Amino acid sequence: MRNLTLLTDLYQLTMGQGYFSEGRHEQKAVFDIFFRPNHLITYSVAAGMEQATDYLENLRFEEDDIAYLRSLGMFTEPYLNYLSQLRFTGDVYSVREGEIVFPYEPIVTVVAPMLEAQLVETALLTFINHQTLIASKAAKICAAAGGGVMEFGLRRAQGADAGIYGARAAIIGGCVGTSNVYAGKQFRIPVSGTMAHSWVMNFPSETEAFRAYARCFPEDCLLLVDTYDTLKSGVPNAIKVFRELRAAGHEPKGIRLDSGDLAYLSKEARKMLDDAGFPEAQICASGDLDEVLIRSLKAQGAKIDTWGVGTKLITSADIPALGGVYKLAAVYEDGREIPKIKLSDTTEKITNPALKEVYRIYDAATDKAVADYIVRAAERVDDTQPLTLFHPVETWKRMTVTNFYVRKLREKLVEGGRRCVPKLPLTEIAAYRAREYAKFWEEYTRQDMPHIYKVDLSPALYSLKKALIEAHGAN
Amino acid sequence: MRNLTLLTDLYQLTMGQGYFSEGRHEQKAVFDIFFRPNHLITYSVAAGMEQATDYLENLRFEEDDIAYLRSLGMFTEPYLNYLSQLRFTGDVYSVREGEIVFPYEPIVTVVAPMLEAQLVETALLTFINHQTLIASKAAKICAAAGGGVMEFGLRRAQGADAGIYGARAAIIGGCVGTSNVYAGKQFRIPVSGTMAHSWVMNFPSETEAFRAYARCFPEDCLLLVDTYDTLKSGVPNAIKVFRELRAAGHEPKGIRLDSGDLAYLSKEARKMLDDAGFPEAQICASGDLDEVLIRSLKAQGAKIDTWGVGTKLITSADIPALGGVYKLAAVYEDGREIPKIKLSDTTEKITNPALKEVYRIYDAATDKAVADYIVRAAERVDDTQPLTLFHPVETWKRMTVTNFYVRKLREKLVEGGRRCVPKLPLTEIAAYRAREYAKFWEEYTRQDMPHIYKVDLSPALYSLKKALIEAHGAN
Repeated sequence: MRNLTLLTDLYQLTMGQGYFSEGRHEQKAVFDIFFRPNHLITYSVAAGMEQATDYLENLRFEEDDIAYLRSLGMFTEPYLNYLSQLRFTGDVYSVREGEIVFPYEPIVTVVAPMLEAQLVETALLTFINHQTLIASKAAKICAAAGGGVMEFGLRRAQGADAGIYGARAAIIGGCVGTSNVYAGKQFRIPVSGTMAHSWVMNFPSETEAFRAYARCFPEDCLLLVDTYDTLKSGVPNAIKVFRELRAAGHEPKGIRLDSGDLAYLSKEARKMLDDAGFPEAQICASGDLDEVLIRSLKAQGAKIDTWGVGTKLITSADIPALGGVYKLAAVYEDGREIPKIKLSDTTEKITNPALKEVYRIYDAATDKAVADYIVRAAERVDDTQPLTLFHPVETWKRMTVTNFYVRKLREKLVEGGRRCVPKLPLTEIAAYRAREYAKFWEEYTRQDMPHIYKVDLSPALYSLKKALIEAHGAN
Repeated sequence: MRNLTLLTDLYQLTMGQGYFSEGRHEQKAVFDIFFRPNHLITYSVAAGMEQATDYLENLRFEEDDIAYLRSLGMFTEPYLNYLSQLRFTGDVYSVREGEIVFPYEPIVTVVAPMLEAQLVETALLTFINHQTLIASKAAKICAAAGGGVMEFGLRRAQGADAGIYGARAAIIGGCVGTSNVYAGKQFRIPVSGTMAHSWVMNFPSETEAFRAYARCFPEDCLLLVDTYDTLKSGVPNAIKVFRELRAAGHEPKGIRLDSGDLAYLSKEARKMLDDAGFPEAQICASGDLDEVLIRSLKAQGAKIDTWGVGTKLITSADIPALGGVYKLAAVYEDGREIPKIKLSDTTEKITNPALKEVYRIYDAATDKAVADYIVRAAERVDDTQPLTLFHPVETWKRMTVTNFYVRKLREKLVEGGRRCVPKLPLTEIAAYRAREYAKFWEEYTRQDMPHIYKVDLSPALYSLKKALIEAHGAN
């Protein structure tokens, strides 16, 4: 495993020096990771916590890291010596990977000595922003396709990790496989892939190229039919080879379309395959797909069974970064919590202070999610009494829920610097996402103008926030 | 170094099995990497070749890679045994990193046994697509800013590699530094960074936070002034601390603005700093910057000296993938070149066949680039005679150049699987880009509706292409 301890912004290390010099570096601090809303993101699928935890467990400056930092001429020897001994000793509370999450709620909270908490900010954001972004994009695409989506984007990924961890996140979001062999091995993801245009071009004729492939993979014969002319050449030649394959006792897998009008071509190809006696042969489509095009193709009756989605999934092309932030929520002095707030002219950008807990409220009759409810850590939510929720800014908007139950949205993931819950297999994470996703009314997960899912504050948290805002205003 | 041999699409390995079974796996093949045009990309800055070369030199399947491939149940033992011995043995011709490149020209050509050439396609595209994308975006941003751009995007990068290699590419594109300490160490890039809002929030007052920082970094005192109120609190408090600093014999570095209207705030802050006797104090701006906003701020007279650019640079947010492709151009049979072509209904998408060379034509009087000229590898360009260029599709558009000289745009980078030219320091690559960029008239590099730089074919290459298209049409 690469040592990624230096994967941080320099200002974490200059602030670290500052806290160290001021004797504040071991002051216990609380930082929250949360997302701000974006018109393209209805909900997010949390991911990246596994890599984040690996990173925290392995945090240590090697000798040559220290030598490099020394070479910058900015740091004192006592500080460098402190860094050389540093391990992450904090606690981390986090939602599970695959959890459906919403803006403003703290999906991860780090409680650690100030210097450690600052140092790890950047890498935690990198991993969690990236994987959550791709898992969320995959979930949108898979919802549009209704299943059968494969991740094919490695060559357009923003570097090796974007391809590898992007493939993992795509599975969490609902994809059924990847073309990426490295990710397949590392995360035991089903891999798929057959041939490129170069294969077809490299034989004297398309038929010979198909035959050669069928000879080699008689049980897994999926033929790319658009190298020359899909309907005049590709599909007829594929059918010819499928007949030979069947005569030899094998059933073909199907065809792949990679260009042209996928609605028209898939409908025509479906007819040709059906008429030739291959109704079970699948049609796989690829080429610049995303959730918008997939919905449009399906609305037009495209006969596509599986979807290979590349660039637009692996880069989340319409919104290539999730603006997840890491904000100071509290520090401790003599064991006492001092809540902290970050003000802004934009009311929605004012942070929620203090160590918090997040509950998801479910309707007991339907098991559907009703709202998320953020409280101060010590509060308890009594689900035997009606609960009145109010909008965190437009506080006159109120709703009272009855007949509900609640679930803590986060678990303690890291205690004293060590993971304290078992790693889950990726299949289990993906299944969890699917189960939880089903607990949301479609009105909340619709891509266009969805109903906004409520994320509200308890009265105690709201009062604290208001008091802190007013205290700052009085300065 | 991580072994990234499995960083490939499964279809490269299934095609490999096919070629192996058919006895074609060692047939010599020629593949080109080139980009297709995009309305957002006027020109590109080539990058990623160093990582690509490292990858080729280190290509080898480890035992557990073979075991994994065996576990897929798709491959024969003789093939797996062949893979376990495989090294990359081919040649690679490539433009230098930092070269200004244009659509359709083969910036990289791989000449290798078919199986090897296919296997390496995906990773070569991943590295070169990604780094060229970010270097190109950085070049656009730096052109808008006129210098002083720092890369601050790690936390929004698509994984660790996107941050690390993205920072490297940003330097090639013209950035002067990065916040990314890992990249700073690995590539010897200047690193910068001072403090976050959390630092300011963590002291009883803004002034105390600034003082603590000044105590710690008296020679590098750049203060973040927007935590509470930039003009009423941040700048006045910074000036107070700058005066104390000067009294102690140090000059302040400046301030950073990270929110609000950067044009207005920078102009006001500049006046306040000047009036207080700190005309040398720099103003650094950050927060959702890209080339469009930077140009707009400068047009409004913003007083900003340095720019910290994050998300939109590290993800190339407006176009997060470069559609670089890898296309078969020829195979060899009995030592004879058989040119190959990929047809398409879209004329521009038809590939250029054969092993090729690219020349850049410069006007001898001005040293400015006139056009790029793609020829068959064996052709020579005679710069003592007038040269008539013609548009590769609209062939009646012609131009004759005289008084010119030419330069081969590519060099042999890898021979027999080993790098055959020395690695260059990053500073030298960045300087090379700056020099070459200056050889283009601004009309070609302008972001909005630029004049299209010519990339033309020699008559011999054009004739070959035409003949191959007609031969396919006759099938």
